[in-house]
Amino acid sequence: MRDPNIKYPDTQAHEYVISRFTEKHIKIHDIAKIVYNQTKEFVPTITIEECERDVIDIIHKRDYLNSAMIMIQLDKLAEQNQLDEPLNTIISNDLGVFGVDESMAVDIATLYGPIGITNFGYLDRKKHGIIKDVDTDKNHVNTFLDDLIGATVAAACGRISHRYA
Amino acid sequence: MRDPNIKYPDTQAHEYVISRFTEKHIKIHDIAKIVYNQTKEFVPTITIEECERDVIDIIHKRDYLNSAMIMIQLDKLAEQNQLDEPLNTIISNDLGVFGVDESMAVDIATLYGPIGITNFGYLDRKKHGIIKDVDTDKNHVNTFLDDLIGATVAAACGRISHRYA
Amino acid sequence: MRDPNIKYPDTQAHEYVISRFTEKHIKIHDIAKIVYNQTKEFVPTITIEECERDVIDIIHKRDYLNSAMIMIQLDKLAEQNQLDEPLNTIISNDLGVFGVDESMAVDIATLYGPIGITNFGYLDRKKHGIIKDVDTDKNHVNTFLDDLIGATVAAACGRISHRYA
Amino acid sequence: MRDPNIKYPDTQAHEYVISRFTEKHIKIHDIAKIVYNQTKEFVPTITIEECERDVIDIIHKRDYLNSAMIMIQLDKLAEQNQLDEPLNTIISNDLGVFGVDESMAVDIATLYGPIGITNFGYLDRKKHGIIKDVDTDKNHVNTFLDDLIGATVAAACGRISHRYA
Repeated sequence: MRDPNIKYPDTQAHEYVISRFTEKHIKIHDIAKIVYNQTKEFVPTITIEECERDVIDIIHKRDYLNSAMIMIQLDKLAEQNQLDEPLNTIISNDLGVFGVDESMAVDIATLYGPIGITNFGYLDRKKHGIIKDVDTDKNHVNTFLDDLIGATVAAACGRISHRYA
Repeated sequence: MRDPNIKYPDTQAHEYVISRFTEKHIKIHDIAKIVYNQTKEFVPTITIEECERDVIDIIHKRDYLNSAMIMIQLDKLAEQNQLDEPLNTIISNDLGVFGVDESMAVDIATLYGPIGITNFGYLDRKKHGIIKDVDTDKNHVNTFLDDLIGATVAAACGRISHRYA
Repeated sequence: MRDPNIKYPDTQAHEYVISRFTEKHIKIHDIAKIVYNQTKEFVPTITIEECERDVIDIIHKRDYLNSAMIMIQLDKLAEQNQLDEPLNTIISNDLGVFGVDESMAVDIATLYGPIGITNFGYLDRKKHGIIKDVDTDKNHVNTFLDDLIGATVAAACGRISHRYA
Repeated sequence: MRDPNIKYPDTQAHEYVISRFTEKHIKIHDIAKIVYNQTKEFVPTITIEECERDVIDIIHKRDYLNSAMIMIQLDKLAEQNQLDEPLNTIISNDLGVFGVDESMAVDIATLYGPIGITNFGYLDRKKHGIIKDVDTDKNHVNTFLDDLIGATVAAACGRISHRYA
């Protein structure tokens, strides 16, 4: 079932991710604010606007989009009870030993090298800003979404670290 | 949407994976045969029966089941056109720069250490035995399935290497 | 330069790691205490003695020993100025964009599945207990050592989570 | 032992890697030839010169240099019997269940996304061109070097795949 003539749909993939963020009231600015708070200690001249540009660039990368689309899709289908069991129960309830969410998030967090790992792990535990809002939303399945946002922040921090190293 | 009292459904998860293998005519014996062919050079006393026991043990591991369920689910939904676009097109056509399949497969291939990586990469390219049948089946979406089988073989090879090291 | 008859030196590898821990005044009990503090919220019946047994088991695993020996060796050689430049400077000064320490640590943290990643990242940032002592020791190169201890704790937490899931 | 004012020594790191390649008679052109042979089927218009530019760009990346320097350093020290035991024996004899070489190589192979994994695993097993020369050199310790070259090729293939996707 392969058609070698199909080009990778970069624009459509990017729009899919952004439209989901919009639906979830996640703004680039909110993600950039966490990036800013994580980096200002090490890069005193950094601004939120600069962090926003990093986040925007990351969200255009193909490897980001591939992982992000899967993460978004799985949350959506679990919420609509459209996954097979026991997967639907595992994801809907964010069972502690699932781990696929962390694993996919790390692929994103390390887009600018392994130094993104620590930031991701820290954010995934502390749940700052918009990550906390997403994590504590009791009415929706956001099992992958909080990890996705945390990983996006971590990748941006890694990108900034390299630029100022 | 979390219920901390829900236990991980080990049995159900294992049955889900095995029933998909059965549906796809993938037998433990066929997977074990590839493991045997990959290891007999290094472990001359190995038997297919021993390889079967390794494959069976691996398929019971929780981290295996988590990744395998996601991989199986995504192939199924793509074939039924139930994923959002452009994800459905990307997975159905096994687009070359997708990569999430390889990434999830590596998590499985390295269940017994990083030495599983080489075996996975080699098998993913050479497509031996049942992996080839799955890969060349033009009527179904098996984008993740061939990687899943290759990773299962690679994990078993890693497990056997450690036992005889 | 390969001799296929050489068996993996499990005992010697384990002794190498333990003797370095002893030299650095790192006790299994201190590592277990951090594991205990990280898990008691989720597993109220856990004891430090149980955590100690988990740590001991992990430190006997071959994939643990392989990574741990490399990490210990690189710190030692950097401190003795026996690495080539610029590697000696990079490791001695724990330069922020190095990342190989985090990458090797994650291999250990995920020995019991990807759920170890979050714990590792969190600990690597918060530097609890003995990890802090190691990190703030100004007279020695411990670039890899704090990550190694953090990863050991994270792996133990992952192992415990699976047992009680 | 941290000095926050030390900048990352990009030029020196690059020179260290290149001078080791020269010492080992590994030319960018030889690496590019393997890249060319791996990609020409999918990108018929590719040239060896284009592949050379990809290899050169990759060898300038900081995350590449970090891993490459460690890999080169460990081979050198093992050959000079300057590593502690049992690490020196393990690396000198390229023991089958070591795995740190594969793990570090994968960090490089996936610099342009997870699709580099398959190529790395395949090359690590088939040992084409200069990789074979390095692997069969009985007089030197090249335990990490063959993996480093294979990973460099795999990263270049991934980079090219993304450009033509």
